[in-house]
Amino acid sequence: MRKRTAFFVSDRTGITAEMLGHSLLTQFDDVQFNEVTLPFVDSIEKAHETVSRINQQGAADGVRPIVISTLARTEIAQVIGQANALYLDCFEIFISPLERELGLHASHAIGRSHRVSDFVDYHHRMESVNYTLSHDDGSSTRDLSDADVILVGVSRCGKTPTCLYLAMQYGIRAANYPLIPEDFSSMGLPSHLRPLRTRLYGLTILPHRLQQIRNERRPGSKYATLENCELEVREAEALMRREGIPYLDATSKSIEELATTILQEAKLLRRIY
Amino acid sequence: MRKRTAFFVSDRTGITAEMLGHSLLTQFDDVQFNEVTLPFVDSIEKAHETVSRINQQGAADGVRPIVISTLARTEIAQVIGQANALYLDCFEIFISPLERELGLHASHAIGRSHRVSDFVDYHHRMESVNYTLSHDDGSSTRDLSDADVILVGVSRCGKTPTCLYLAMQYGIRAANYPLIPEDFSSMGLPSHLRPLRTRLYGLTILPHRLQQIRNERRPGSKYATLENCELEVREAEALMRREGIPYLDATSKSIEELATTILQEAKLLRRIY
Repeated sequence: MRKRTAFFVSDRTGITAEMLGHSLLTQFDDVQFNEVTLPFVDSIEKAHETVSRINQQGAADGVRPIVISTLARTEIAQVIGQANALYLDCFEIFISPLERELGLHASHAIGRSHRVSDFVDYHHRMESVNYTLSHDDGSSTRDLSDADVILVGVSRCGKTPTCLYLAMQYGIRAANYPLIPEDFSSMGLPSHLRPLRTRLYGLTILPHRLQQIRNERRPGSKYATLENCELEVREAEALMRREGIPYLDATSKSIEELATTILQEAKLLRRIY
Repeated sequence: MRKRTAFFVSDRTGITAEMLGHSLLTQFDDVQFNEVTLPFVDSIEKAHETVSRINQQGAADGVRPIVISTLARTEIAQVIGQANALYLDCFEIFISPLERELGLHASHAIGRSHRVSDFVDYHHRMESVNYTLSHDDGSSTRDLSDADVILVGVSRCGKTPTCLYLAMQYGIRAANYPLIPEDFSSMGLPSHLRPLRTRLYGLTILPHRLQQIRNERRPGSKYATLENCELEVREAEALMRREGIPYLDATSKSIEELATTILQEAKLLRRIY
């Protein structure tokens, strides 16, 4: 297995650079990448320090590093460009065609995403996180009708992290409500949820996987037996089908995949922060 | 203000494309962008549907849209390239120089980031989210020594969303613990935190901003008065200085900025999922 160092360099948080860079590098299976994010490179002095660090790493590796960056200020990008590395700057590469298309010059102001630039937007996002935390696992039915979406499903099928991702990344007020054995025996939705049926979205999971997860939480409990997990999943799916609630199998999906699928299918606004 | 539609197209979640695209477009202040993410374009058929949608939007706008994409499969990228749009595909643009540098061909397998590709990694991340939720606001001191970092600060200064972001995005076990008036009068750290001093990181906030936030929660309370906010912030900062706890002003920083600054300064591992 070959080894290479990749640096993700940014004048702000580095989140965009590392996400794009990591995604590109996963296309090369035969190389083991040492991925290093260097955020807040926002002065000429820090740019020179960064060049030294890149060059030292290249000398230690015996092969030049790869640098993927998002640097809005041309002067900083030019300094980084002097490093002995394969240098790919997203701004340099994308801004020119965009300038030509729009007939405008880019402001080259340091990264504006991931900032509290629009206070109203940011406040909305934080309020959504608070709402989601206080409406986790059916903990509060107050203001449940303010939810943009309410995830339902058996205990430990992935509702909580999916809701948190929806709130943090997209400012969605995402409540979640467990489906429990009492709901199955009454053959119906919990009464709080009935008037909100159109906002419900279900998650389900393979019983074997559910058993693993529950067993880590409560080893040896009846709650964690395969038999019980099979029963709960079967009943919950039957209930969701009967009530016309769309649902998704969470077993092998990441929270990003679950969240973006729900956004798309429930036609929720995908705000970008 | 000119208006343009920008599409962020991806064969997976679209998160990378929309984050990069949004960040690039914020460089053009004079244009109002209608930003639309189209995820899961993972077949030739869906690619043709996407082209129709882009072309319809262009006809409605009277100007061709901008398309920024992350499409691993060349056949799908080629179909999208037929749309009447400025088309910038991150894979097409970046993969060639990476292939030349590495002397390898990219696998062109559909996006591998944001997937449950590595089960151990994904499990670690979900465990960190669970840990963070159960160690919010000093709610549990059990296993507090398992935390990678423990955020401290006055109530409502931004500890909770920052911890959640650290856990969700980077798999960090981030606990948080409020500093309350009793700690100030005892002139010391809460006893649970004393043995963990090296893992503490502080947040502070301007008293005026704290007052606004608290007043939305508990309007007219003593807790929300400017006088009380000033006192708490002053005492908390004095305590953190006395105890040698590094701290950061959260007033005008986003959770991404807070999280990445803490990762960097506390030298925590920045895992990329």
